[in-house]
Amino acid sequence: MKVSDIGEFGLIDLIKDDTIYNPDDVVVGIGDDTAVLKHPPGKLLLATTDMMIETVHFIVEPDNGEKIGYRAMAANVSDIASMGGIPTHAMISMGVRPEMEASYIEQVYNGLKKCSKLYEFNIVGGDTVSSPQNLVINVALMGWVEPDKYLLRSRARPGDLILVTGNLGDSRAGLELITNKIKVSEKAEEYLLERHYYPTPRVKEIRAALEAGTITSADDISDGLGNEIHEIASASEVGAVIWFDELPISNAVKEVAEITKKDLLDFCLFGGEDFEVVMTAPPREAELIARAIKNETGTEATIIGKIVDKSQGIMLFRNNQYKKLSKKGYVHFN
Amino acid sequence: MKVSDIGEFGLIDLIKDDTIYNPDDVVVGIGDDTAVLKHPPGKLLLATTDMMIETVHFIVEPDNGEKIGYRAMAANVSDIASMGGIPTHAMISMGVRPEMEASYIEQVYNGLKKCSKLYEFNIVGGDTVSSPQNLVINVALMGWVEPDKYLLRSRARPGDLILVTGNLGDSRAGLELITNKIKVSEKAEEYLLERHYYPTPRVKEIRAALEAGTITSADDISDGLGNEIHEIASASEVGAVIWFDELPISNAVKEVAEITKKDLLDFCLFGGEDFEVVMTAPPREAELIARAIKNETGTEATIIGKIVDKSQGIMLFRNNQYKKLSKKGYVHFN
Repeated sequence: MKVSDIGEFGLIDLIKDDTIYNPDDVVVGIGDDTAVLKHPPGKLLLATTDMMIETVHFIVEPDNGEKIGYRAMAANVSDIASMGGIPTHAMISMGVRPEMEASYIEQVYNGLKKCSKLYEFNIVGGDTVSSPQNLVINVALMGWVEPDKYLLRSRARPGDLILVTGNLGDSRAGLELITNKIKVSEKAEEYLLERHYYPTPRVKEIRAALEAGTITSADDISDGLGNEIHEIASASEVGAVIWFDELPISNAVKEVAEITKKDLLDFCLFGGEDFEVVMTAPPREAELIARAIKNETGTEATIIGKIVDKSQGIMLFRNNQYKKLSKKGYVHFN
Repeated sequence: MKVSDIGEFGLIDLIKDDTIYNPDDVVVGIGDDTAVLKHPPGKLLLATTDMMIETVHFIVEPDNGEKIGYRAMAANVSDIASMGGIPTHAMISMGVRPEMEASYIEQVYNGLKKCSKLYEFNIVGGDTVSSPQNLVINVALMGWVEPDKYLLRSRARPGDLILVTGNLGDSRAGLELITNKIKVSEKAEEYLLERHYYPTPRVKEIRAALEAGTITSADDISDGLGNEIHEIASASEVGAVIWFDELPISNAVKEVAEITKKDLLDFCLFGGEDFEVVMTAPPREAELIARAIKNETGTEATIIGKIVDKSQGIMLFRNNQYKKLSKKGYVHFN
């Protein structure tokens, strides 16, 4: 059944159920032109949006609709998480090619809903229009954070330690398996594909961190740790040292690096879309934060470096040498 | 200069200024991944979104960028207005063809900003991506309304009167001038093109109405009055009579109808995108509401019919006859 066979309202019927996780927060949801929602008293409102376009951000294949939907939502959840916030309500706009299978669009929505359920928020509305050549998915996500808790990239200070949640490079290594048909152990393949297709934005981890200590800066890792460290350093006007030996790297990534003869850094510093969070905190607080994240959520948090003076630049410490770390790669320094 | 010449960040530089109307409500705006905003205490949160795609919703011509941007924003403002709300913060996602002129995209943003300034709200963020074949514009707009004031389509009762703001059919008549190159008086042309390109969502009018009396249902006129009356009647489980002689029709629309030999109803009942609001209210309240709208805002509000029992259906009273009014046209009834 094509989208053009069932029309806009047929499509809406296919996708409209099972969108509300917290009904008490929705006064008027899908069906009216405007959603009427509750916002928790005393909290700041968070809002973020991302657009994904077929052929630019993803390819349509018969069985990948759910993955693409999940990924579109997860990117927005990660943006809310890195602010220290809790996601509450999403709106989905979709431009659909009329000749697409309606079941594919249903799968995309299943992916969007899979993510909204996992992170316990509502899909409260949207817009479904015709798009002649490319499937377009736009997510607008709202959330909240306490006025004294929202996180920025700009408050890191020399002496702060740098932490990351989870492992680095899993998503990039998963992509390597898919695009270059690399063969690894079954266990590694299963792990990396899951991590690539269904990354887990760190909402609970950051909330646990906020309870445990003072976070001076934070950013989600969407373009690789190397890039986010540069963002934080630039916004905070500081330098940074990353300790290679401390980087949390899964055995599965090590397997892929070995087989492909690529440097581990290609995965864990310059591979994007892990949706982990990098944070900075004063040393005593950093230890407390790492422990609290592990205790409250089961997710590892690892101290991987420290903030230094701006004049020292941004460096990688590896094999007893400091190398200058550029945004997208590294060059020998000393 | 093409978009591909200046890149994503060059484009963001072109458009990022002059987006904030109420700086006190913005803690973190454009530049971070997530906007951090203030929401007025005790108010419900409104959220709406609309996607427009080149060739489906608009055509790109050298000088129409500002009009398209204004129109994209106004459609969302109208949705907030018809809920009784006040718009506060918008997020803009745009998929841009790389070979487009950067100045065209700047013009689209100028149109978006023109509308956000007129309605006194902020543009707080968005996403700018590459789109291979069609310009895509998505607006997500937030706002607020008091918990005891939000309007629905579903509470109209037999005996209520039906009101509309402004004139009906101006936008459709303006479109007629553009597509069929109709010649009318200079005054009429100027008026209709302005009304077509720069419609004025009725935020202040509805707020004045809410202060003056009880509104039992409301909807903005995006698909023609005929369609919206059907929406209200269906949601409220009632019928309606529209009095033809009372419909507010500009002299300019009458001029176009005469020249094109079209029925006035084609413009004022079945022409869309006027972004006026149709409301229902008990008779005594309706008079108060119409007067308050005029006094507070200068905009005319006209009583054009009444709500009747569902069994009577939806009718047009014209030349002393009742005709059945269908969603998209009318058929002889009696």
